[in-house]
Amino acid sequence: MTLIRTHTCGELTREQTGETAILNGWVGTRRDLGGVIFIDLRDRYGITQVVFSPQDDKTAHELADQLRPEYVIGVEGEVRQRDPINVNPNVKTGDIELRVKKLVIYSRSETPPFEIQDDLKTNEDLRLKYRYLDLRRPAMQRNLMLRSALYRHTREYFHEQQFAEIETPFLMRSTPEGARDYLVPSRVNPGKFFALPQSPQTYKQILMVSGMDRYFQIVKCFRDEDLRADRQPEFTQIDVEMSFVDEEQVYTLMEGLLQRILREVVGAQVDTPFPRMTYKEAMTTYGSDKPDTRFDMKFVDFSEIVRDSEFRVFSKTVADGGAVVGFVVPGMGSLGRGVMDRLTKRTRDEIGAGGLIYIKNNEDEIYSSVSKFVSEDMTRAMVEVSGAQKGDLILLLAGSAETVYGQLGDLRLLMAREYDLIDTSAYNLLWVTDFPLLEYDSEDGRYYAMHHPFTSPRPEDVELLKTDPGKVRARAYDLVMNGSEIGGGSIRIHDTELQSTMFEALGIGKDEAQQKFGFLLDAFRYGAPPHGGIALGLDRIAMLLTEAKSLRDVIAFPKNQRAISLMDNCPSVVDQAQLRELHIRLAPGLDSADK
Amino acid sequence: MTLIRTHTCGELTREQTGETAILNGWVGTRRDLGGVIFIDLRDRYGITQVVFSPQDDKTAHELADQLRPEYVIGVEGEVRQRDPINVNPNVKTGDIELRVKKLVIYSRSETPPFEIQDDLKTNEDLRLKYRYLDLRRPAMQRNLMLRSALYRHTREYFHEQQFAEIETPFLMRSTPEGARDYLVPSRVNPGKFFALPQSPQTYKQILMVSGMDRYFQIVKCFRDEDLRADRQPEFTQIDVEMSFVDEEQVYTLMEGLLQRILREVVGAQVDTPFPRMTYKEAMTTYGSDKPDTRFDMKFVDFSEIVRDSEFRVFSKTVADGGAVVGFVVPGMGSLGRGVMDRLTKRTRDEIGAGGLIYIKNNEDEIYSSVSKFVSEDMTRAMVEVSGAQKGDLILLLAGSAETVYGQLGDLRLLMAREYDLIDTSAYNLLWVTDFPLLEYDSEDGRYYAMHHPFTSPRPEDVELLKTDPGKVRARAYDLVMNGSEIGGGSIRIHDTELQSTMFEALGIGKDEAQQKFGFLLDAFRYGAPPHGGIALGLDRIAMLLTEAKSLRDVIAFPKNQRAISLMDNCPSVVDQAQLRELHIRLAPGLDSADK
Repeated sequence: MTLIRTHTCGELTREQTGETAILNGWVGTRRDLGGVIFIDLRDRYGITQVVFSPQDDKTAHELADQLRPEYVIGVEGEVRQRDPINVNPNVKTGDIELRVKKLVIYSRSETPPFEIQDDLKTNEDLRLKYRYLDLRRPAMQRNLMLRSALYRHTREYFHEQQFAEIETPFLMRSTPEGARDYLVPSRVNPGKFFALPQSPQTYKQILMVSGMDRYFQIVKCFRDEDLRADRQPEFTQIDVEMSFVDEEQVYTLMEGLLQRILREVVGAQVDTPFPRMTYKEAMTTYGSDKPDTRFDMKFVDFSEIVRDSEFRVFSKTVADGGAVVGFVVPGMGSLGRGVMDRLTKRTRDEIGAGGLIYIKNNEDEIYSSVSKFVSEDMTRAMVEVSGAQKGDLILLLAGSAETVYGQLGDLRLLMAREYDLIDTSAYNLLWVTDFPLLEYDSEDGRYYAMHHPFTSPRPEDVELLKTDPGKVRARAYDLVMNGSEIGGGSIRIHDTELQSTMFEALGIGKDEAQQKFGFLLDAFRYGAPPHGGIALGLDRIAMLLTEAKSLRDVIAFPKNQRAISLMDNCPSVVDQAQLRELHIRLAPGLDSADK
Repeated sequence: MTLIRTHTCGELTREQTGETAILNGWVGTRRDLGGVIFIDLRDRYGITQVVFSPQDDKTAHELADQLRPEYVIGVEGEVRQRDPINVNPNVKTGDIELRVKKLVIYSRSETPPFEIQDDLKTNEDLRLKYRYLDLRRPAMQRNLMLRSALYRHTREYFHEQQFAEIETPFLMRSTPEGARDYLVPSRVNPGKFFALPQSPQTYKQILMVSGMDRYFQIVKCFRDEDLRADRQPEFTQIDVEMSFVDEEQVYTLMEGLLQRILREVVGAQVDTPFPRMTYKEAMTTYGSDKPDTRFDMKFVDFSEIVRDSEFRVFSKTVADGGAVVGFVVPGMGSLGRGVMDRLTKRTRDEIGAGGLIYIKNNEDEIYSSVSKFVSEDMTRAMVEVSGAQKGDLILLLAGSAETVYGQLGDLRLLMAREYDLIDTSAYNLLWVTDFPLLEYDSEDGRYYAMHHPFTSPRPEDVELLKTDPGKVRARAYDLVMNGSEIGGGSIRIHDTELQSTMFEALGIGKDEAQQKFGFLLDAFRYGAPPHGGIALGLDRIAMLLTEAKSLRDVIAFPKNQRAISLMDNCPSVVDQAQLRELHIRLAPGLDSADK
């Protein structure tokens, strides 16, 4: 039978000296010293040293001889202070040990395929296969506990703010817009399929039409996407929608949430309101719609200065409507020729930019990598405009507006990481606003919604929808933390006419719109409030707060990069009979389990 | 643009008299009196009377003439006390009205297919199709808000108790045990399928093996079942698992939760510990494994008394090992012949019991429906043993032990409901314990796990597993509220050997076990703690607390009884192209969307 614990392994201190205590846990390291057995007993809460000595109890001591790592045991004994020389000041329980009088072995363990410790040097596939052992490591336990705290404080915040927590369906209608749906055949409705939600977007808008006023939910979403390095087929979203609001109410609410989360979960302080930046400003200043503003290195546009340069790369780029842009890397003017050559190569290979140009603004001389083609005066003028100090390095790229900012943005990040220019203790939050409503896809010859087709255009741009759709700005916003997009949302369209205009701009005809989104359009006919919302990526936030290297390190049972769970080996083949029940067959050439 | 509200429609009182306020909401009833327009403006928080008069603002008054029910508007105006004669004491805002100076119409509404009011007499299909209108009704808003509070207090409780909230996967391995899995074809792993969880059972046990110690989650589960009256294909579970516990720790924890929920959500007080009853006692005393103990009417066994009766129905039943059992219905001895005949018919038609026998223990006489066959002495003895008072009615059934208790249990409920013998203000909670571990299926000629194959047998019954499996009692428990099972759980097997014995008893071979549950069995080889848990049905609890008639009334977007969502009309046919991408085809004779 189970010895019901009186304390956890992270709890006993000098205060309990002399008391009898019962602990349960996993056997960690074991040392035998002069006929006495010392065990580090581990549970989620900590580690306590337990001691088996023939003096304390002969039976327990004999049984303890069988103990091996990862055995699960219960022990009852007396709390004693350790000898001063054995005190471990790094552990809460480091002052004491438990002298065992009774031992129960609940279960034994084979030798684990890897040790249960944080500095683990094993491949990730093995960790994922033996996830139950991987999760025993203190670092993984901390990650999951932090994630648990993240749920808690997020929900408390929304409940305090009068939000209704409402579950939306997982078995919903397939809407073939955007990324790919997971489909679910229905056994009782032959030939018909549900889809798993890519987001509860339509339902949360319906809830606003239903008068629920303020809705939130922490909810799983699904995307059967082509696999990318750090994506999961199922991911968790903090989903929010509010009625009768403008952008400002959404900003204020979410700023309060992030402030609360950072304070309660990692003890960090952030000021509100968060800075805001339009999409255009973000692109032309940082070359990214999710700029990392923990470091400066803002872009400088040299196009005007170099417009008439004899250097064709400069003058032709500007003449063709492109830009010559760059940024200053503080204190890096001393980088040697070899380093700069390697950087030039990386800029080409990793970033895809044609040619890196640089100027070293050093005390003794101004060195330009294109001094053969660009006059000293012009170089000097560029240094001046850049604001570079003596000892700084200026990096430049020339190219079309569509590509050069993004490439320079990548180069900016590369430099910051390479030379440790990021203050990693900071939590830097900002809003990026005024995204374009539509993106033109030249392959398909049509516009697509950048966010989704329910995003409202800015009122002053509505007229452009019919004349110059690419210019229309959306009432859409992204929340960015430390250079990662952690969420995005918008004020939605709540007017059936405007929604129709939007569908027209997207080339979605009346029938198609009705077929895909009919129930939402129907709902709008019965009194829809102005509304807007946002969705945050909980996995990503957890990853940033734990400083984990991968989303997989903040998800209890993740899929790997082939969308496979190695622990339970799924997806898997199923029986022919199961498929028959679901009224489906495999495509030709594929086998079921019973063939 | 949106008029940002200063107050909700449930907020303004006399205290704000003279202040300027902005409200948003839906137009309810409208009255025109002497050129002045009165509107009940409604939002989630309440109703406020707003008044449009030419004296206050001519433009607003003119625009207000367009207002119809369910229009969405914003109004700005001055809070005024109503004339004493117009005060409505039933509403929080009943003392005041808002004299409007500015009106914005956000959106108009067609005439809704039904009125937005609580005493709705429309068919449920129409309500489900226009769910966004149905959810505007105050009763539905209350239901969803109560459910939201249920989430909140449940989660707060578990977090306070050091539980880790952990999400388990929705895309998991199909385990063909028990009810039916929803399958999800994988696009990137052709011919392979995920299953949606019927419960996170294996994952929560894995979390215990992972050392997470205390886990909880409020989680959606899925069952592609043959449709029953009040089942949903997706349902919500409060899922709990704990390490190093016996039944007692689970009971204490859950009693605290229910106490907290009832106090915080409906303001009811319940005492702990809850009463306990073995499965056997529940069956022989109430004829149900989820007895409603808000009323008495316990069973009395008359078998011994009637063993030697000349009445063959009695004596043969007892001789064949069956039972003659009944219960007393207090004060119902005066029911007339006609009523008793109808009851006899219902007992046969609705309950399936052969023949209802009754004794009226009235002041003037003891009337027995079988007086022709049963002696007066025996009848008198039966009355005595039953404990019936003068004026009481005794109902009896005779039959095999397998059927008679259940039938009598149904009859007990029928009588209690028919004659209003249930104290509906009470919250009656109890544990039913010691369920049989296994059920014999005579059709399949094998035993099935009554709960699931990971449930631990009682230690003293383990030996019976190999000799008389049907007799083994499980360490399983159900939590019952007001005659509904609201949850069930067990102490699990944590020992690989015992697990193997269990699989043997279930006729599951080594290979089959490895194929189905291999990863859990593997996990047990590396040190599993003793553990146990429970899962509560959140939908059912919400239904009991709201006194809703159907689960559909406490779920925002339910499926109907054919597992169809009428609002968004799913499941639906999908394109051939979509199926091709998923490497599946429809069964012969079924059509896809593009045919």
